[in-house]
Amino acid sequence: MINPTKLDQRAMTDGVEPSVAARLACRHGHVGSTAGFAPGYVQGNLAILPEKLAGAFHRFCQLNPKPCPIIGMSEVGDPRIPALGLDLDIRTDIPRYRVWRDGEAVDEPTDIMDVWRDDLVAFVLGCSFSFEEALLADDISIRHIEENVRVPMYRTNIACAPSAPFAGPMVVSMRPMRPKDAIRAVQITSRFPSVHGAPVHLGLPLSIGIADLAKPDYGDAVSIADDEIPVFWACGVTPQSVIAAAKLPFAITHAPGMMLVTDLKNKQLAVL
Amino acid sequence: MINPTKLDQRAMTDGVEPSVAARLACRHGHVGSTAGFAPGYVQGNLAILPEKLAGAFHRFCQLNPKPCPIIGMSEVGDPRIPALGLDLDIRTDIPRYRVWRDGEAVDEPTDIMDVWRDDLVAFVLGCSFSFEEALLADDISIRHIEENVRVPMYRTNIACAPSAPFAGPMVVSMRPMRPKDAIRAVQITSRFPSVHGAPVHLGLPLSIGIADLAKPDYGDAVSIADDEIPVFWACGVTPQSVIAAAKLPFAITHAPGMMLVTDLKNKQLAVL
Repeated sequence: MINPTKLDQRAMTDGVEPSVAARLACRHGHVGSTAGFAPGYVQGNLAILPEKLAGAFHRFCQLNPKPCPIIGMSEVGDPRIPALGLDLDIRTDIPRYRVWRDGEAVDEPTDIMDVWRDDLVAFVLGCSFSFEEALLADDISIRHIEENVRVPMYRTNIACAPSAPFAGPMVVSMRPMRPKDAIRAVQITSRFPSVHGAPVHLGLPLSIGIADLAKPDYGDAVSIADDEIPVFWACGVTPQSVIAAAKLPFAITHAPGMMLVTDLKNKQLAVL
Repeated sequence: MINPTKLDQRAMTDGVEPSVAARLACRHGHVGSTAGFAPGYVQGNLAILPEKLAGAFHRFCQLNPKPCPIIGMSEVGDPRIPALGLDLDIRTDIPRYRVWRDGEAVDEPTDIMDVWRDDLVAFVLGCSFSFEEALLADDISIRHIEENVRVPMYRTNIACAPSAPFAGPMVVSMRPMRPKDAIRAVQITSRFPSVHGAPVHLGLPLSIGIADLAKPDYGDAVSIADDEIPVFWACGVTPQSVIAAAKLPFAITHAPGMMLVTDLKNKQLAVL
Protein backbone atom coordinates (compact mmCIF):
# COMPACT_ATOMS: atom_id res chain seq x y z
CA MET A 1 0.00 0.00 0.00
CA ILE A 2 1.18 3.49 -0.79
CA ASN A 3 2.20 5.84 2.00
CA PRO A 4 0.14 9.01 1.47
CA THR A 5 2.89 11.27 2.77
CA LYS A 6 5.38 9.80 0.29
CA LEU A 7 2.80 10.39 -2.43
CA ASP A 8 2.55 14.07 -1.55
CA GLN A 9 6.33 14.40 -1.50
CA ARG A 10 6.52 12.78 -4.92
CA ALA A 11 3.79 15.12 -6.22
CA MET A 12 5.82 18.10 -5.06
CA THR A 13 8.97 16.73 -6.69
CA ASP A 14 7.13 16.08 -9.94
CA GLY A 15 5.42 19.46 -9.87
CA VAL A 16 1.88 18.06 -10.03
CA GLU A 17 -1.07 18.59 -7.70
CA PRO A 18 -1.23 16.04 -4.87
CA SER A 19 -4.68 15.06 -6.14
CA VAL A 20 -3.26 14.27 -9.58
CA ALA A 21 -0.46 12.25 -8.01
CA ALA A 22 -3.05 10.36 -5.94
CA ARG A 23 -5.12 9.53 -9.03
CA LEU A 24 -2.01 8.45 -10.93
CA ALA A 25 -1.10 6.14 -8.05
CA CYS A 26 -4.58 4.61 -8.06
CA ARG A 27 -4.48 4.30 -11.85
CA HIS A 28 -1.13 2.56 -11.77
CA GLY A 29 -1.56 -0.02 -9.11
CA HIS A 30 -2.41 1.37 -5.67
CA VAL A 31 -5.07 -0.86 -4.14
CA GLY A 32 -6.30 0.19 -0.71
CA SER A 33 -7.98 2.99 1.19
CA THR A 34 -7.58 6.55 -0.03
CA ALA A 35 -7.87 7.91 3.52
CA GLY A 36 -5.09 10.43 4.04
CA PHE A 37 -4.44 10.84 0.30
CA ALA A 38 -4.04 14.42 -0.93
CA PRO A 39 -5.13 16.24 2.25
CA GLY A 40 -7.33 19.24 1.49
CA TYR A 41 -8.74 17.71 -1.70
CA VAL A 42 -12.28 16.43 -2.07
CA GLN A 43 -12.76 12.67 -2.31
CA GLY A 44 -15.97 11.25 -3.71
CA ASN A 45 -18.21 8.20 -3.67
CA LEU A 46 -18.91 6.62 -7.05
CA ALA A 47 -22.09 5.30 -8.66
CA ILE A 48 -22.15 4.24 -12.32
CA LEU A 49 -25.44 3.30 -13.95
CA PRO A 50 -26.81 2.62 -17.43
CA GLU A 51 -28.38 5.68 -19.04
CA LYS A 52 -31.91 4.29 -18.81
CA LEU A 53 -31.62 4.23 -14.99
CA ALA A 54 -29.42 7.29 -14.64
CA GLY A 55 -32.32 9.74 -14.88
CA ALA A 56 -34.20 8.09 -12.02
CA PHE A 57 -31.01 7.93 -9.94
CA HIS A 58 -30.22 11.57 -10.67
CA ARG A 59 -33.71 12.47 -9.48
CA PHE A 60 -33.21 10.32 -6.36
CA CYS A 61 -30.09 12.34 -5.57
CA GLN A 62 -31.94 15.58 -6.23
CA LEU A 63 -34.66 14.51 -3.77
CA ASN A 64 -32.17 13.34 -1.14
CA PRO A 65 -29.29 15.82 -1.21
CA LYS A 66 -28.06 15.08 2.30
CA PRO A 67 -27.15 11.41 1.72
CA CYS A 68 -26.56 11.87 -2.03
CA PRO A 69 -24.85 15.21 -2.76
CA ILE A 70 -23.66 15.18 -6.39
CA ILE A 71 -20.29 16.86 -6.88
CA GLY A 72 -19.76 15.72 -10.46
CA MET A 73 -21.19 13.52 -13.22
CA SER A 74 -20.10 12.32 -16.62
CA GLU A 75 -21.81 12.59 -19.96
CA VAL A 76 -23.33 9.37 -21.25
CA GLY A 77 -20.60 6.93 -22.24
CA ASP A 78 -17.82 9.39 -21.44
CA PRO A 79 -15.37 8.19 -18.77
CA ARG A 80 -14.05 11.71 -18.19
CA ILE A 81 -15.30 14.27 -15.64
CA PRO A 82 -13.15 17.30 -16.44
CA ALA A 83 -14.69 19.43 -13.69
CA LEU A 84 -13.15 17.06 -11.13
CA GLY A 85 -9.78 16.61 -12.88
CA LEU A 86 -8.68 17.18 -16.48
CA ASP A 87 -6.83 13.87 -16.69
CA LEU A 88 -9.47 11.94 -14.72
CA ASP A 89 -10.60 8.59 -16.15
CA ILE A 90 -13.40 7.14 -14.05
CA ARG A 91 -12.58 3.62 -15.36
CA THR A 92 -9.12 3.47 -13.79
CA ASP A 93 -8.68 6.15 -11.14
CA ILE A 94 -10.31 4.41 -8.20
CA PRO A 95 -8.27 1.77 -6.34
CA ARG A 96 -11.01 -0.83 -6.32
CA TYR A 97 -14.52 -1.00 -7.78
CA ARG A 98 -17.58 -3.07 -7.03
CA VAL A 99 -19.51 -4.48 -9.99
CA TRP A 100 -23.17 -5.24 -9.25
CA ARG A 101 -25.42 -7.58 -11.23
CA ASP A 102 -29.05 -8.14 -10.23
CA GLY A 103 -28.43 -6.58 -6.85
CA GLU A 104 -25.40 -8.71 -6.01
CA ALA A 105 -21.78 -7.55 -5.82
CA VAL A 106 -20.20 -9.98 -8.27
CA ASP A 107 -16.70 -8.59 -8.70
CA GLU A 108 -14.22 -6.14 -7.16
CA PRO A 109 -11.82 -5.25 -9.97
CA THR A 110 -9.11 -2.59 -9.79
CA ASP A 111 -10.26 -1.06 -13.05
CA ILE A 112 -13.45 -1.30 -15.12
CA MET A 113 -12.04 -1.11 -18.65
CA ASP A 114 -13.53 -4.53 -19.43
CA VAL A 115 -17.06 -3.73 -18.27
CA TRP A 116 -17.30 -0.08 -19.40
CA ARG A 117 -20.11 0.58 -21.88
CA ASP A 118 -21.19 3.44 -24.10
CA ASP A 119 -24.45 3.84 -22.19
CA LEU A 120 -22.96 4.33 -18.71
CA VAL A 121 -23.24 7.50 -16.64
CA ALA A 122 -20.92 8.11 -13.67
CA PHE A 123 -22.03 10.05 -10.57
CA VAL A 124 -19.52 11.27 -8.01
CA LEU A 125 -21.06 12.05 -4.62
CA GLY A 126 -19.59 14.08 -1.76
CA CYS A 127 -18.17 12.13 1.18
CA SER A 128 -17.62 12.72 4.88
CA PHE A 129 -13.82 12.96 4.56
CA SER A 130 -14.35 16.61 3.56
CA PHE A 131 -16.36 17.67 6.57
CA GLU A 132 -14.21 15.60 8.90
CA GLU A 133 -11.23 17.63 7.75
CA ALA A 134 -13.10 20.81 8.69
CA LEU A 135 -13.99 19.37 12.12
CA LEU A 136 -10.39 18.32 12.79
CA ALA A 137 -9.17 21.75 11.70
CA ASP A 138 -11.41 23.14 14.45
CA ASP A 139 -9.85 20.80 17.04
CA ILE A 140 -12.93 18.60 17.27
CA SER A 141 -11.69 15.05 17.70
CA ILE A 142 -13.30 12.24 15.73
CA ARG A 143 -13.60 9.00 17.61
CA HIS A 144 -13.25 6.44 14.83
CA ILE A 145 -10.11 8.21 13.62
CA GLU A 146 -8.72 8.20 17.16
CA GLU A 147 -9.59 4.52 17.51
CA ASN A 148 -8.32 3.76 14.01
CA VAL A 149 -11.46 1.96 12.85
CA ARG A 150 -14.12 2.59 10.20
CA VAL A 151 -16.86 5.07 11.04
CA PRO A 152 -19.93 3.31 12.51
CA MET A 153 -22.93 3.44 10.17
CA TYR A 154 -26.57 2.56 10.79
CA ARG A 155 -29.72 2.01 8.76
CA THR A 156 -32.41 4.35 10.10
CA ASN A 157 -36.18 4.53 9.98
CA ILE A 158 -35.88 7.75 7.95
CA ALA A 159 -37.21 6.92 4.49
CA CYS A 160 -35.46 8.54 1.57
CA ALA A 161 -37.78 10.24 -0.91
CA PRO A 162 -38.23 7.53 -3.57
CA SER A 163 -37.54 7.76 -7.29
CA ALA A 164 -38.44 4.31 -8.60
CA PRO A 165 -36.68 1.92 -8.65
CA PHE A 166 -34.54 3.75 -6.06
CA ALA A 167 -35.94 3.75 -2.53
CA GLY A 168 -35.00 2.77 0.96
CA PRO A 169 -33.92 4.03 4.36
CA MET A 170 -31.28 6.66 4.93
CA VAL A 171 -28.00 5.30 6.24
CA VAL A 172 -26.23 7.55 8.74
CA SER A 173 -22.71 7.73 10.11
CA MET A 174 -22.22 8.46 13.81
CA ARG A 175 -19.59 10.45 15.68
CA PRO A 176 -19.87 10.77 19.50
CA MET A 177 -19.18 14.27 20.82
CA ARG A 178 -19.57 16.36 23.93
CA PRO A 179 -22.66 18.58 23.49
CA LYS A 180 -20.55 21.73 23.10
CA ASP A 181 -18.59 20.13 20.27
CA ALA A 182 -21.82 18.81 18.74
CA ILE A 183 -23.17 22.37 18.55
CA ARG A 184 -19.91 23.55 16.97
CA ALA A 185 -20.03 20.58 14.57
CA VAL A 186 -23.53 21.65 13.43
CA GLN A 187 -22.15 25.11 12.68
CA ILE A 188 -19.09 23.81 10.83
CA THR A 189 -20.76 21.12 8.75
CA SER A 190 -23.68 23.42 7.83
CA ARG A 191 -21.11 25.25 5.70
CA PHE A 192 -20.59 22.12 3.58
CA PRO A 193 -23.94 21.09 2.07
CA SER A 194 -22.26 19.28 -0.83
CA VAL A 195 -20.58 16.82 1.53
CA HIS A 196 -23.63 15.81 3.61
CA GLY A 197 -23.95 19.18 5.42
CA ALA A 198 -25.38 19.50 8.93
CA PRO A 199 -26.22 16.42 11.02
CA VAL A 200 -29.64 14.87 10.48
CA HIS A 201 -30.05 13.85 14.10
CA LEU A 202 -28.39 13.86 17.48
CA GLY A 203 -28.92 12.54 20.96
CA LEU A 204 -31.76 10.04 20.59
CA PRO A 205 -30.79 7.07 18.41
CA LEU A 206 -34.04 5.20 19.10
CA SER A 207 -36.03 8.05 17.51
CA ILE A 208 -34.46 7.21 14.16
CA GLY A 209 -34.71 3.45 14.59
CA ILE A 210 -31.26 2.69 15.98
CA ALA A 211 -31.69 0.22 18.84
CA ASP A 212 -28.06 -0.41 19.74
CA LEU A 213 -25.18 1.93 18.94
CA ALA A 214 -22.75 -0.89 19.71
CA LYS A 215 -24.04 -2.82 16.69
CA PRO A 216 -23.56 -0.72 13.57
CA ASP A 217 -24.94 -2.06 10.30
CA TYR A 218 -21.75 -1.05 8.51
CA GLY A 219 -18.28 -0.11 9.77
CA ASP A 220 -17.14 -0.55 13.34
CA ALA A 221 -18.48 0.35 16.78
CA VAL A 222 -16.69 3.11 18.68
CA SER A 223 -16.65 4.00 22.36
CA ILE A 224 -19.03 6.68 23.67
CA ALA A 225 -18.32 8.46 26.96
CA ASP A 226 -20.99 9.35 29.52
CA ASP A 227 -20.66 13.04 28.74
CA GLU A 228 -21.08 12.54 25.01
CA ILE A 229 -24.05 12.33 22.68
CA PRO A 230 -24.17 10.50 19.35
CA VAL A 231 -24.28 12.87 16.36
CA PHE A 232 -25.59 11.46 13.08
CA TRP A 233 -24.85 12.58 9.54
CA ALA A 234 -26.46 11.35 6.33
CA CYS A 235 -24.04 8.85 4.82
CA GLY A 236 -22.81 8.09 1.32
CA VAL A 237 -23.51 4.40 1.89
CA THR A 238 -27.18 5.31 1.36
CA PRO A 239 -26.95 5.40 -2.47
CA GLN A 240 -25.00 2.14 -2.50
CA SER A 241 -27.64 0.59 -0.28
CA VAL A 242 -30.56 1.70 -2.50
CA ILE A 243 -28.69 0.59 -5.62
CA ALA A 244 -28.29 -2.86 -4.08
CA ALA A 245 -31.93 -2.92 -2.98
CA ALA A 246 -33.13 -1.94 -6.47
CA LYS A 247 -31.55 -5.16 -7.80
CA LEU A 248 -30.46 -3.42 -10.99
CA PRO A 249 -29.26 -5.65 -13.81
CA PHE A 250 -25.97 -3.74 -13.82
CA ALA A 251 -24.23 -1.04 -11.78
CA ILE A 252 -20.76 -0.14 -10.58
CA THR A 253 -19.69 1.57 -7.35
CA HIS A 254 -16.40 2.09 -5.55
CA ALA A 255 -15.34 -0.44 -2.93
CA PRO A 256 -15.74 0.95 0.62
CA GLY A 257 -13.03 3.41 1.63
CA MET A 258 -11.50 3.44 -1.85
CA MET A 259 -12.64 6.75 -3.19
CA LEU A 260 -12.11 9.02 -6.14
CA VAL A 261 -9.61 11.78 -5.35
CA THR A 262 -10.65 14.96 -7.18
CA ASP A 263 -8.93 18.27 -7.90
CA LEU A 264 -11.62 20.17 -5.95
CA LYS A 265 -10.44 21.49 -2.63
CA ASN A 266 -12.52 20.95 0.50
CA LYS A 267 -12.40 24.65 1.35
CA GLN A 268 -13.94 25.46 -2.05
CA LEU A 269 -17.06 23.59 -0.95
CA ALA A 270 -17.75 25.94 1.97
CA VAL A 271 -20.84 28.03 1.25
CA LEU A 272 -20.02 30.57 3.95
CA MET B 1 -52.50 46.01 30.85
CA ILE B 2 -52.12 47.19 27.29
CA ASN B 3 -53.11 44.95 24.42
CA PRO B 4 -50.03 44.80 22.15
CA THR B 5 -52.13 44.53 18.99
CA LYS B 6 -54.07 47.67 19.93
CA LEU B 7 -50.73 49.37 20.52
CA ASP B 8 -49.54 48.52 17.02
CA GLN B 9 -52.82 49.74 15.53
CA ARG B 10 -52.46 53.02 17.42
CA ALA B 11 -48.85 53.36 16.20
CA MET B 12 -50.03 52.99 12.63
CA THR B 13 -52.77 55.56 13.16
CA ASP B 14 -50.32 57.99 14.75
CA GLY B 15 -47.71 57.41 12.07
CA VAL B 16 -44.99 56.34 14.51
CA GLU B 17 -42.90 53.20 14.64
CA PRO B 18 -44.51 50.44 16.75
CA SER B 19 -41.35 50.46 18.91
CA VAL B 20 -41.83 54.17 19.64
CA ALA B 21 -45.48 53.58 20.47
CA ALA B 22 -44.45 50.75 22.81
CA ARG B 23 -41.92 52.96 24.61
CA LEU B 24 -44.46 55.76 24.91
CA ALA B 25 -46.95 53.34 26.44
CA CYS B 26 -44.36 52.15 28.96
CA ARG B 27 -43.36 55.74 29.69
CA HIS B 28 -46.94 56.76 30.28
CA GLY B 29 -48.26 54.07 32.52
CA HIS B 30 -48.11 50.57 31.04
CA VAL B 31 -46.98 48.20 33.78
CA GLY B 32 -46.59 44.58 32.73
CA SER B 33 -44.74 42.27 30.39
CA THR B 34 -43.53 43.63 27.07
CA ALA B 35 -43.91 40.19 25.43
CA GLY B 36 -45.69 40.67 22.13
CA PHE B 37 -44.98 44.43 22.01
CA ALA B 38 -43.75 45.76 18.65
CA PRO B 39 -43.16 42.42 16.91
CA GLY B 40 -39.96 42.45 14.86
CA TYR B 41 -38.24 44.97 17.13
CA VAL B 42 -35.40 44.11 19.49
CA GLN B 43 -36.15 44.12 23.20
CA GLY B 44 -33.34 44.35 25.72
CA ASN B 45 -32.38 43.52 29.29
CA LEU B 46 -31.24 46.45 31.42
CA ALA B 47 -28.37 46.90 33.85
CA ILE B 48 -27.53 50.31 35.32
CA LEU B 49 -24.42 50.74 37.44
CA PRO B 50 -22.37 53.55 38.94
CA GLU B 51 -19.43 54.61 36.76
CA LYS B 52 -16.84 53.18 39.14
CA LEU B 53 -18.31 49.69 38.63
CA ALA B 54 -19.35 50.12 35.01
CA GLY B 55 -15.85 49.41 33.64
CA ALA B 56 -15.63 46.08 35.43
CA PHE B 57 -19.16 45.18 34.33
CA HIS B 58 -18.41 46.17 30.74
CA ARG B 59 -15.37 43.91 30.84
CA PHE B 60 -17.51 41.10 32.32
CA CYS B 61 -19.86 41.42 29.33
CA GLN B 62 -16.90 41.48 26.94
CA LEU B 63 -15.61 38.25 28.51
CA ASN B 64 -19.04 36.57 28.50
CA PRO B 65 -20.73 37.65 25.28
CA LYS B 66 -23.15 34.72 25.14
CA PRO B 67 -25.03 35.51 28.39
CA CYS B 68 -24.25 39.26 28.24
CA PRO B 69 -24.40 40.55 24.66
CA ILE B 70 -24.36 44.37 24.76
CA ILE B 71 -26.62 45.97 22.18
CA GLY B 72 -26.38 49.51 23.55
CA MET B 73 -25.00 51.60 26.40
CA SER B 74 -25.33 55.15 27.61
CA GLU B 75 -22.69 57.74 28.30
CA VAL B 76 -22.03 58.43 31.97
CA GLY B 77 -24.97 60.23 33.55
CA ASP B 78 -26.85 60.41 30.26
CA PRO B 79 -30.27 58.69 30.28
CA ARG B 80 -30.44 58.64 26.47
CA ILE B 81 -29.24 55.86 24.15
CA PRO B 82 -29.90 57.37 20.73
CA ALA B 83 -28.66 54.30 18.86
CA LEU B 84 -31.61 52.37 20.30
CA GLY B 85 -34.21 55.13 19.88
CA LEU B 86 -33.88 58.90 19.44
CA ASP B 87 -36.57 59.66 22.01
CA LEU B 88 -35.49 56.92 24.40
CA ASP B 89 -35.18 57.82 28.08
CA ILE B 90 -33.82 54.90 30.07
CA ARG B 91 -35.31 56.34 33.29
CA THR B 92 -38.92 56.03 32.16
CA ASP B 93 -39.25 53.71 29.16
CA ILE B 94 -39.28 50.37 30.95
CA PRO B 95 -42.57 49.27 32.57
CA ARG B 96 -41.00 48.29 35.87
CA TYR B 97 -37.49 48.50 37.31
CA ARG B 98 -35.70 46.75 40.13
CA VAL B 99 -33.54 48.85 42.45
CA TRP B 100 -30.77 46.94 44.20
CA ARG B 101 -28.94 48.03 47.35
CA ASP B 102 -26.20 45.87 48.90
CA GLY B 103 -27.27 42.90 46.81
CA GLU B 104 -30.96 43.10 47.76
CA ALA B 105 -33.85 44.14 45.52
CA VAL B 106 -35.32 46.94 47.62
CA ASP B 107 -37.83 48.53 45.27
CA GLU B 108 -39.68 47.94 41.99
CA PRO B 109 -40.65 51.40 40.74
CA THR B 110 -42.22 52.17 37.37
CA ASP B 111 -39.67 54.90 36.70
CA ILE B 112 -36.27 55.75 38.17
CA MET B 113 -36.37 59.55 37.99
CA ASP B 114 -35.95 59.74 41.78
CA VAL B 115 -32.91 57.50 41.98
CA TRP B 116 -31.14 58.53 38.77
CA ARG B 117 -27.64 59.95 39.33
CA ASP B 118 -25.02 61.73 37.24
CA ASP B 119 -22.58 58.85 37.64
CA LEU B 120 -24.83 56.06 36.28
CA VAL B 121 -24.15 54.08 33.12
CA ALA B 122 -26.92 52.05 31.45
CA PHE B 123 -26.23 48.80 29.60
CA VAL B 124 -28.83 47.23 27.34
CA LEU B 125 -28.26 43.54 26.66
CA GLY B 126 -29.77 41.35 23.93
CA CYS B 127 -32.60 39.03 24.97
CA SER B 128 -34.02 35.74 23.79
CA PHE B 129 -37.22 37.30 22.40
CA SER B 130 -35.22 38.11 19.26
CA PHE B 131 -34.01 34.59 18.51
CA GLU B 132 -37.34 33.11 19.52
CA GLU B 133 -38.95 35.22 16.81
CA ALA B 134 -36.51 33.74 14.28
CA LEU B 135 -37.27 30.20 15.50
CA LEU B 136 -41.04 30.74 15.29
CA ALA B 137 -40.62 32.22 11.81
CA ASP B 138 -39.02 28.90 10.84
CA ASP B 139 -41.99 26.96 12.26
CA ILE B 140 -40.06 25.68 15.26
CA SER B 141 -42.48 25.65 18.16
CA ILE B 142 -41.38 26.92 21.55
CA ARG B 143 -42.79 24.99 24.47
CA HIS B 144 -43.10 27.71 27.13
CA ILE B 145 -44.92 29.93 24.63
CA GLU B 146 -47.26 27.03 23.76
CA GLU B 147 -47.84 26.37 27.47
CA ASN B 148 -48.13 30.08 28.20
CA VAL B 149 -45.60 30.11 31.02
CA ARG B 150 -42.19 31.73 31.59
CA VAL B 151 -39.17 30.06 30.00
CA PRO B 152 -37.49 27.63 32.44
CA MET B 153 -34.04 28.84 33.53
CA TYR B 154 -31.31 27.02 35.43
CA ARG B 155 -28.06 27.89 37.18
CA THR B 156 -25.29 25.77 35.66
CA ASN B 157 -21.82 24.62 36.68
CA ILE B 158 -20.39 26.68 33.79
CA ALA B 159 -18.42 29.49 35.41
CA CYS B 160 -18.56 32.86 33.71
CA ALA B 161 -15.14 34.44 33.14
CA PRO B 162 -14.85 36.77 36.16
CA SER B 163 -14.22 40.50 36.19
CA ALA B 164 -14.18 41.41 39.89
CA PRO B 165 -16.53 42.01 41.60
CA PHE B 166 -18.61 40.30 38.88
CA ALA B 167 -18.45 36.50 38.87
CA GLY B 168 -20.72 33.50 39.08
CA PRO B 169 -22.29 30.67 37.14
CA MET B 170 -23.92 31.04 33.76
CA VAL B 171 -27.71 30.88 33.85
CA VAL B 172 -29.30 29.14 30.87
CA SER B 173 -32.78 29.02 29.44
CA MET B 174 -34.12 25.71 28.13
CA ARG B 175 -36.36 24.84 25.20
CA PRO B 176 -37.19 21.16 24.52
CA MET B 177 -37.05 20.19 20.86
CA ARG B 178 -36.97 17.17 18.63
CA PRO B 179 -33.35 16.58 17.55
CA LYS B 180 -34.05 17.68 13.98
CA ASP B 181 -35.44 20.98 15.22
CA ALA B 182 -32.55 21.33 17.67
CA ILE B 183 -30.10 21.11 14.74
CA ARG B 184 -32.10 23.70 12.82
CA ALA B 185 -32.25 25.89 15.94
CA VAL B 186 -28.44 25.80 16.18
CA GLN B 187 -28.26 27.01 12.58
CA ILE B 188 -30.84 29.76 13.07
CA THR B 189 -29.61 31.13 16.38
CA SER B 190 -25.96 31.06 15.23
CA ARG B 191 -26.97 33.95 12.98
CA PHE B 192 -27.83 36.07 16.03
CA PRO B 193 -24.71 36.38 18.23
CA SER B 194 -25.93 39.65 19.76
CA VAL B 195 -28.98 37.95 21.26
CA HIS B 196 -27.24 34.95 22.92
CA GLY B 197 -26.40 33.19 19.62
CA ALA B 198 -26.09 29.41 19.33
CA PRO B 199 -27.04 27.11 22.22
CA VAL B 200 -24.34 26.46 24.81
CA HIS B 201 -25.44 22.90 25.47
CA LEU B 202 -27.96 20.26 24.52
CA GLY B 203 -28.99 16.79 25.48
CA LEU B 204 -27.20 16.14 28.79
CA PRO B 205 -28.39 18.49 31.56
CA LEU B 206 -26.32 16.74 34.25
CA SER B 207 -23.12 17.61 32.38
CA ILE B 208 -23.75 21.28 33.11
CA GLY B 209 -24.92 20.74 36.67
CA ILE B 210 -28.68 20.57 36.14
CA ALA B 211 -30.02 17.70 38.24
CA ASP B 212 -33.73 18.06 37.58
CA LEU B 213 -35.27 19.79 34.58
CA ALA B 214 -38.62 19.84 36.38
CA LYS B 215 -37.18 22.23 38.97
CA PRO B 216 -35.94 25.36 37.23
CA ASP B 217 -34.14 27.97 39.33
CA TYR B 218 -36.10 30.74 37.60
CA GLY B 219 -39.25 30.72 35.47
CA ASP B 220 -41.51 27.71 35.09
CA ALA B 221 -41.08 24.04 34.23
CA VAL B 222 -42.33 22.88 30.84
CA SER B 223 -43.20 19.43 29.55
CA ILE B 224 -40.61 17.45 27.61
CA ALA B 225 -41.67 14.60 25.31
CA ASP B 226 -39.78 11.32 24.99
CA ASP B 227 -38.61 12.21 21.50
CA GLU B 228 -37.24 15.59 22.56
CA ILE B 229 -33.94 16.79 23.98
CA PRO B 230 -33.41 19.87 26.14
CA VAL B 231 -31.60 22.68 24.32
CA PHE B 232 -29.89 25.31 26.45
CA TRP B 233 -29.08 28.93 25.61
CA ALA B 234 -27.07 31.40 27.66
CA CYS B 235 -29.59 33.59 29.45
CA GLY B 236 -29.88 37.28 30.22
CA VAL B 237 -30.66 36.45 33.84
CA THR B 238 -26.92 35.76 34.19
CA PRO B 239 -25.92 39.45 34.51
CA GLN B 240 -28.75 40.09 36.98
CA SER B 241 -27.61 37.08 38.99
CA VAL B 242 -23.95 38.22 39.12
CA ILE B 243 -25.03 41.78 39.97
CA ALA B 244 -27.01 40.41 42.92
CA ALA B 245 -24.14 38.16 43.98
CA ALA B 246 -21.66 41.06 43.86
CA LYS B 247 -23.74 42.81 46.57
CA LEU B 248 -23.12 46.19 44.98
CA PRO B 249 -24.08 49.21 47.06
CA PHE B 250 -26.37 50.35 44.22
CA ALA B 251 -27.63 49.03 40.88
CA ILE B 252 -30.78 49.07 38.80
CA THR B 253 -32.15 46.41 36.47
CA HIS B 254 -35.45 45.82 34.71
CA ALA B 255 -38.08 43.66 36.43
CA PRO B 256 -38.36 40.20 34.81
CA GLY B 257 -40.25 40.19 31.52
CA MET B 258 -40.51 43.98 31.45
CA MET B 259 -37.97 44.90 28.85
CA LEU B 260 -36.78 47.90 26.91
CA VAL B 261 -38.32 48.03 23.44
CA THR B 262 -35.76 49.45 20.99
CA ASP B 263 -35.94 50.76 17.42
CA LEU B 264 -33.52 48.04 16.24
CA LYS B 265 -35.13 45.31 14.20
CA ASN B 266 -34.46 41.67 14.98
CA LYS B 267 -33.57 40.96 11.37
CA GLN B 268 -30.88 43.66 11.50
CA LEU B 269 -29.08 41.55 14.11
CA ALA B 270 -28.58 38.61 11.75
CA VAL B 271 -24.90 38.28 10.85
CA LEU B 272 -25.61 36.04 7.87
